[in-house]
Amino acid sequence: MKKQFAVIGIGRFGYSLATKLYQLGFDVIAIDNNEKIVQKIADLVTYSVQADASDIDVLKTIGLKNVDCVIISIGSDLNASLMATLNAKELEISEVFAKAPNEQHAKVLYKIGADKVFLPERDMGRRLAHNIVSTNILDMIELDPDHSVIEINAFSGWHDKDLRRLDLRAKYGINVIAIKRGTEIIISPKPTEQILTKDVMVVIGNNKSLAAIQKAEG
Amino acid sequence: MKKQFAVIGIGRFGYSLATKLYQLGFDVIAIDNNEKIVQKIADLVTYSVQADASDIDVLKTIGLKNVDCVIISIGSDLNASLMATLNAKELEISEVFAKAPNEQHAKVLYKIGADKVFLPERDMGRRLAHNIVSTNILDMIELDPDHSVIEINAFSGWHDKDLRRLDLRAKYGINVIAIKRGTEIIISPKPTEQILTKDVMVVIGNNKSLAAIQKAEG
Ligand SMILES: Nc1ncnc2c1ncn2[C@@H]1O[C@H](COP(=O)(O)OP(=O)(O)OP(=O)(O)O)[C@@H](O)[C@H]1O
Ligand SMILES: Nc1ncnc2c1ncn2[C@@H]1O[C@H](COP(=O)(O)OP(=O)(O)OP(=O)(O)O)[C@@H](O)[C@H]1O
Ligand SMILES: [Ca+2]
Ligand SMILES: [Ca+2]
Ligand SMILES: [Ca+2]
Ligand SMILES: [Ca+2]
Repeated sequence: MKKQFAVIGIGRFGYSLATKLYQLGFDVIAIDNNEKIVQKIADLVTYSVQADASDIDVLKTIGLKNVDCVIISIGSDLNASLMATLNAKELEISEVFAKAPNEQHAKVLYKIGADKVFLPERDMGRRLAHNIVSTNILDMIELDPDHSVIEINAFSGWHDKDLRRLDLRAKYGINVIAIKRGTEIIISPKPTEQILTKDVMVVIGNNKSLAAIQKAEG
Repeated sequence: MKKQFAVIGIGRFGYSLATKLYQLGFDVIAIDNNEKIVQKIADLVTYSVQADASDIDVLKTIGLKNVDCVIISIGSDLNASLMATLNAKELEISEVFAKAPNEQHAKVLYKIGADKVFLPERDMGRRLAHNIVSTNILDMIELDPDHSVIEINAFSGWHDKDLRRLDLRAKYGINVIAIKRGTEIIISPKPTEQILTKDVMVVIGNNKSLAAIQKAEG
């Protein structure tokens, strides 16, 4: 059987999440206490319903307990976010995820039983900071607040030099994990590997080093 | 000289962006019309100031025209977001970026001259949908249609075994780039490194192999 999701709180984040899950082929119930929002999303999910998620009786009536995963995406009304999370736990939903506006609220959500908590604005703010300061970053994974894996265009100063000569580990404390060259991917490149003009490099290191490179080479 | 940024609108996204840019070593002015928010961020950026960004005279007074890049992160008040963007253009800031709540507003922002428009809630909603449906991928970089770097929770079958014994390269053709253990990051782990229960692993490989692992070990 198809996995069933419920998204509670159809703000910008909840809307994007619910419609994408539906596009990926899953059953999605969208719940919001604002009737207009419920109507707007109706054709883009399996089923949309107006309900106050802080009221457990209402959630029982709409059959929430039959879904496999609930994602609570209520941002501003902290009380409603907590009540909805408690209610989903009470209904014994196997996966209860929640969006938090900040770290304190995230802690509270974990404490009352959320299986996973997301902070999308915090994460995207950080992500964008990295992207803005370097015209060169194509993509990245932030491993922790201090370390990242980044995909970058090789700087022009690196072209036609080999990795030993560039010595990025000694100079900046970063490691080259892979080189993307056309349709080829060279994993764990050798020190003798030369950087070519259109190479894309995958490197890992701490954020300060990665920023320092941008300044020195960019 | 250090590049100077101004972030206008210190909501959750603006806060994360401004503080991260400052952590990366740049000069950051944080602007919000809410005095409490201005005080809260004061020590985490170069300078924070209470101002109504829809008023160009106020922006002139605080010297906004000297910054290199303005990012407008006002979400709910569409009029303020538009006015702030127009004002930044009027002051001839070389880069004017803006956050938009939805695609229609994004179009308007481009039309009045924004150089780049971001939709963080939309993007994170989509991203999360992908992450949720694939059990234990935390984050990923798609290098090309066939290869990815992924951040995953170590599968339980891997716990207390060392990398040599797991032999993921021979078995699946994937390479372990790093292990995230609590606050520590082990880059290029040795073959003798043991995987612990809460380890997060950064691996690189082709997508088919990565999917095969999910099926075999998940
Ligand atoms: N008790 C509740 N039951 C159901 N829905 C609710 C409840 N309280 C709030 N909501 C809905 O949750 C949605 C998201 O809330 P809100 O706009 O405060 O979050 P947000 O974090 O600012 O959203 P985003 O940034 O994703 O746009 C709103 O559409 C609101 O109607
Ligand atoms: N005219 C203005 N001048 C300066 N700041 C403003 C103005 N209007 C709104 N702001 C500030 O912008 C900030 C962000 O606005 P708002 O909370 O509506 O956006 P949001 O998209 O919901 O934020 P987020 O999702 O990032 O938390 C608020 O702190 C608000 O005080
Ligand atoms: Ca938001
Ligand atoms: Ca991550
Ligand atoms: Ca909001
Ligand atoms: Ca990419």
